[in-house]
Amino acid sequence: MASKTITEAELDQIHAFAVQLGKDAGNLLMEAARSRFSNNNATHDEKHTAQEFTEKDSAVDIVTQTDEDVEAFIKNAINTRYPSHHFIGEETYAKSSQPTRPYLVAPTTPTWVVDPLDGTVNYTHLFPMFCVSIAFLIDGAPVIGVIYAPMLGQLFTACKGRGAWLNETQQLPLVRQPMPRNAPGGCVFSCEWGKDRKDRPDGNLYRKVESFVNMAAEVGGRGGKGGMVHGVRSLGSATLDLAYTAMGSFDIWWEGGCWEWDVAAGVAVLQEAGGLITSANPPEEWATAEIPEAKLGSRLYLAIRPAGPSEGETAREGQERTVKEVWRRVRALDYTRPGA
Amino acid sequence: MASKTITEAELDQIHAFAVQLGKDAGNLLMEAARSRFSNNNATHDEKHTAQEFTEKDSAVDIVTQTDEDVEAFIKNAINTRYPSHHFIGEETYAKSSQPTRPYLVAPTTPTWVVDPLDGTVNYTHLFPMFCVSIAFLIDGAPVIGVIYAPMLGQLFTACKGRGAWLNETQQLPLVRQPMPRNAPGGCVFSCEWGKDRKDRPDGNLYRKVESFVNMAAEVGGRGGKGGMVHGVRSLGSATLDLAYTAMGSFDIWWEGGCWEWDVAAGVAVLQEAGGLITSANPPEEWATAEIPEAKLGSRLYLAIRPAGPSEGETAREGQERTVKEVWRRVRALDYTRPGA
Repeated sequence: MASKTITEAELDQIHAFAVQLGKDAGNLLMEAARSRFSNNNATHDEKHTAQEFTEKDSAVDIVTQTDEDVEAFIKNAINTRYPSHHFIGEETYAKSSQPTRPYLVAPTTPTWVVDPLDGTVNYTHLFPMFCVSIAFLIDGAPVIGVIYAPMLGQLFTACKGRGAWLNETQQLPLVRQPMPRNAPGGCVFSCEWGKDRKDRPDGNLYRKVESFVNMAAEVGGRGGKGGMVHGVRSLGSATLDLAYTAMGSFDIWWEGGCWEWDVAAGVAVLQEAGGLITSANPPEEWATAEIPEAKLGSRLYLAIRPAGPSEGETAREGQERTVKEVWRRVRALDYTRPGA
Repeated sequence: MASKTITEAELDQIHAFAVQLGKDAGNLLMEAARSRFSNNNATHDEKHTAQEFTEKDSAVDIVTQTDEDVEAFIKNAINTRYPSHHFIGEETYAKSSQPTRPYLVAPTTPTWVVDPLDGTVNYTHLFPMFCVSIAFLIDGAPVIGVIYAPMLGQLFTACKGRGAWLNETQQLPLVRQPMPRNAPGGCVFSCEWGKDRKDRPDGNLYRKVESFVNMAAEVGGRGGKGGMVHGVRSLGSATLDLAYTAMGSFDIWWEGGCWEWDVAAGVAVLQEAGGLITSANPPEEWATAEIPEAKLGSRLYLAIRPAGPSEGETAREGQERTVKEVWRRVRALDYTRPGA
């Protein structure tokens, strides 16, 4: 299972190290968040002067600093413990001048893929849906995932062959049910508006919205594409979207534009829980196509929750049926790698 | 502040009673949720037979039963302690045959407005964004609000004149900042797709989507209506949308179709934290209109988070400016009371 250079016992050690690292990093995020809480007891009587209040602009600066500090903390811990491993972090990468943003420079080297803060907008606004995301990859495949959302007190962990867990005690998914017979009916559909909001005819914003409306509209509506999903949710964190899909809370997550640090740990947790991950973009012959596993780095993802079998259908068959019902309703998105 | 029949000391007692009731009811919700967790250690090897897995259909039945049981528990506790108070609960009301669904039969009687389970779809799918919502009204105005989301470990409480609190120790909002100068830019916009998904030209689904896209699209887009909000969020719980607006995490919440038990406790928490609540539907002369306070029962709500003043603008002025920037971009929704 692990590559020949890493034994199962070593993998257990790396896992334990990653879990502790995730907890420590998440606690740093929470400390920095808490330091921004007002301690004043003012009600809305406006007795206070403008100087007592921080503007959002400076909140953004504080958050950027925290993001960089926490990445440095994680990178330093990994370099100290595993100096031979490769490290890819969001902040390090964002500052890189490499125009092609090459992913996984040496995929055969054991690699850490880290987002010190996923859900940055949420964190800036102190909405609890933010987390640290740490993945460990062997031969380019995420085999360990640690996601910690400190303001929610939720820790998601997985190591290949050892199961996926919530707070180290509750195995994921919480319930293993068959996919609904009328999927995407009965499904909670998770999706994100993202940052690409250009008002361009048939741009990504419009393709997304058309897809959202198809999934949401009543059955029979939208020229037969209406999916009447049970609910539409947008949390603002790709990592937590994947974590809640692994938990079974979300049945379907569909998104484009993510970078690998947004999803690597979530993919590890999802796959270990029994979820399926493939491409957001429907292949040409979607109805008959094989369901390919999503390539990390593709920026286009469709995740289906862990399922149980039903009479006459295996879990995987139910998931694949759901993938096709999503592909039937969504538009292909246009996200490429800069310079690629 | 309290009506002449209820003293401040009595209000404190009612508040303490409501908080304990919210905790107890939330714990009942959590117990019932936990009883649905799988205890098997299966990974995705599909060794298990279909009989071991529950279908979503029966999950819905279990949830309905829990909803009714928790409402009965709350109603019984209130009737025992305060037999002269009026009680309005979602479940009781849903079963009522009164075609006009008259709200507040005797508004001068102290009244409890209760949703035993808000975020029912989330609860069914074991997504943590569900809560119990308990409001106490004097003369038709919510003066106490208790919201408890047990799977998040988040308790929001407020009593008129005593402030709004997270987990009884952290005053809300977490930070009191001025509204962004370019609002709705810089704002987190919370909205819901709801259950009304008819594929009808210019129906509520299309009016909502048009409004969402206006708020989301780049500045200058959508014929000048593009708001380029910082993020768009959909949680699937009106009560928690209001709680997070009171917390300051969401800057704007815009929604139609809610019933009073969906919002009464949230309105109490929001207002006590210093937030503003008005109508989702823009008045005809929206640019110059007075900002009316939302009427409980109107089914149309626009909430703005608690704000701080900036140089040259009071907190209220910043909130009102934001209301108008939302009204500029949203369509009026069509929600009436059945039989009204």
